[in-house]
Amino acid sequence: MTAPERGFSESEFAARTQRAQTRMAAAGMAGLLLMTEAEVRYFSGFQTLFWQSPTRPWFLFVPASGKPIAIIPEIGAELMRHTWIDDIRTWSAPAPQDDGISLLTDLLTPLAQGGDTIGVMKGHETALRMPLGDYERLMLGVPGLRVADSTAVIRALRMVKSEAEIEKLAHICAIGSRSFARVPALAREGLPLEDLFREFRREALAQGADDVPYLVGGADTGGYHDVISPPSRRPLTRGDILMLDTGANWDGYFCDFDRNFAIGAADSASRRAYDVLWRATEAGIAAARPGTSCRELFQTMNSVIAELDDQGGDVGRLGHGLGMQLTEWPSHAAFDDTVITENMVLTLEPSLSYGDGRIMVHEENIVVRVDGAALLSERADPELPVI
Amino acid sequence: MTAPERGFSESEFAARTQRAQTRMAAAGMAGLLLMTEAEVRYFSGFQTLFWQSPTRPWFLFVPASGKPIAIIPEIGAELMRHTWIDDIRTWSAPAPQDDGISLLTDLLTPLAQGGDTIGVMKGHETALRMPLGDYERLMLGVPGLRVADSTAVIRALRMVKSEAEIEKLAHICAIGSRSFARVPALAREGLPLEDLFREFRREALAQGADDVPYLVGGADTGGYHDVISPPSRRPLTRGDILMLDTGANWDGYFCDFDRNFAIGAADSASRRAYDVLWRATEAGIAAARPGTSCRELFQTMNSVIAELDDQGGDVGRLGHGLGMQLTEWPSHAAFDDTVITENMVLTLEPSLSYGDGRIMVHEENIVVRVDGAALLSERADPELPVI
Repeated sequence: MTAPERGFSESEFAARTQRAQTRMAAAGMAGLLLMTEAEVRYFSGFQTLFWQSPTRPWFLFVPASGKPIAIIPEIGAELMRHTWIDDIRTWSAPAPQDDGISLLTDLLTPLAQGGDTIGVMKGHETALRMPLGDYERLMLGVPGLRVADSTAVIRALRMVKSEAEIEKLAHICAIGSRSFARVPALAREGLPLEDLFREFRREALAQGADDVPYLVGGADTGGYHDVISPPSRRPLTRGDILMLDTGANWDGYFCDFDRNFAIGAADSASRRAYDVLWRATEAGIAAARPGTSCRELFQTMNSVIAELDDQGGDVGRLGHGLGMQLTEWPSHAAFDDTVITENMVLTLEPSLSYGDGRIMVHEENIVVRVDGAALLSERADPELPVI
Repeated sequence: MTAPERGFSESEFAARTQRAQTRMAAAGMAGLLLMTEAEVRYFSGFQTLFWQSPTRPWFLFVPASGKPIAIIPEIGAELMRHTWIDDIRTWSAPAPQDDGISLLTDLLTPLAQGGDTIGVMKGHETALRMPLGDYERLMLGVPGLRVADSTAVIRALRMVKSEAEIEKLAHICAIGSRSFARVPALAREGLPLEDLFREFRREALAQGADDVPYLVGGADTGGYHDVISPPSRRPLTRGDILMLDTGANWDGYFCDFDRNFAIGAADSASRRAYDVLWRATEAGIAAARPGTSCRELFQTMNSVIAELDDQGGDVGRLGHGLGMQLTEWPSHAAFDDTVITENMVLTLEPSLSYGDGRIMVHEENIVVRVDGAALLSERADPELPVI
């Protein structure tokens, strides 16, 4: 299998920036101040694991016209110079007394003097990736500057993927599928779940993943009890229902899907739960077309789930967007009236509770095309596989 | 090799909470509102990779007395019930219109009515891990509540490790050391750096790491140019200086150190840079004793580095704290006057620039004991190893 090319063409970043600027103009924003990994990378191509260190803030400013401006720690200058960004302003960080604040103040002062509005992401699924005290200090230093929530601007752009992004997503989903196909060879009675997790990670790397940052799951007699736990040392036992859910990535793009297995033998309640969720996913695949809303997609899947569980469950939604982050906007939930459009990449993730506090989750990854959903993950078996 | 026990005793969480409450009382704080992964885990033991999804906020409130209170999405309730926390308040998340804000308002209203002060982390190396718009809305809903920066309270606690924490850190550092010892068997001329990264990750997992979230490095003729890049497809070539820097983890605790190698042959400038940095690290190990300040530790290492490079470099500091995060307070830098105390776990990370824009970094991990530093990483070779 040939991997796609890494990175993106300069024209892709230019197109992203121009689309942002069109939306900014419509929203009356003279600039976007970005500080989160995905957003800085989306507009610049700046890709590093160094974000895992909480020590230094990183900023990208998208002006009303022209290329974005990077305001970053000196340690990142060399890497940023390899991107399409020309205007790179750096300071020697960490510098708790002035971690980029003077540079930002210089940049924003003319806008403040003009009474302009800039966008900062303040909405759902966002965080302020700089010290709150520094943000408050920055705002005091640019009196007159108006700040609006730019979440909707960024959300609208990032939800719809380019063909180059879809190619990367298809690649990592294929790696995920091949890795799950190996689980029957890796899992066996007596193997502690922790060791299976380790073997699965090694397998996904061997299959071509850059990393496997997300791996959760569970295994217990007749069904697992929660879906976000780290693995225990409990050995796999005949009668267990095993679930692995992985977010592996390649070139900064994620797959996010899971697979369920029975160890040795499957109980009938779990087989029934599996069947309901498999059909809920089928219904979701059929419904995920341009023009459908996320609420409708949720209701479509939920009406199948209701055969077995009409409580709504603990997960809060039945899938979400997928891309540079493990989970992205939108949400397949009753509250989300986002209309699905061509080239959205989505997870379909129906779940239900059954039996005595058991839970089961299915998940597939799709890209929405003009004529409907195309699977990026290899479709799960219609019946609960027994290992 | 036997791994330590996972998790912590309830008494450890009780002691952490009590120490926080003592400091809160001194600072006049009636509670701490926490929302970041490390802090929630530090006081509750709640450990999940689910934090990688940016969708849902999670809150832990440490009151003036008694156990912390969890205000979390329903999907985490089952896992939280396995911790020492009793008071678990949940909502069905995501819920963009009210993602925990009503529950927090209920909790904080009595404090607001009393004119109390709560602590929120606003300082260096922190972020606001909830939507800024929700934070602003929450504050409007509890008029009279005073908010102070609680970074100093948390920082003072987390910088000093318990024996149980040190045991975990020693374990993952030993795993890191064994993994680096295998690099001469994994690396060879002609191997693309990307493939070496993949092999190193697989090796660290096989050696017992739970995960290898952080792996950066570089390789180039006569020296590498930056220290935060993802790997290229460029094959290793005779004359390269190769550096791998890893943050692997075990039970939620990190190692963070690097190793340098020459491929085939080492040029004299790189051998000289290596020698200077090795001796700078020696000086750091000798200086890292209770009573030394981080500034003094920085100056001690920097005076050796100055033999070759007196420009101060791009990294901004010569090491940092280590624990639940890849990088933690303090910083070995001129700005940090933190006094080193017993049971701090630190990295010593001298770096320098040399030749034509080359950079070299060394790194070791230590725990500070009453009589001085003890290495947690196996000390690097005194001479640049040639593969």
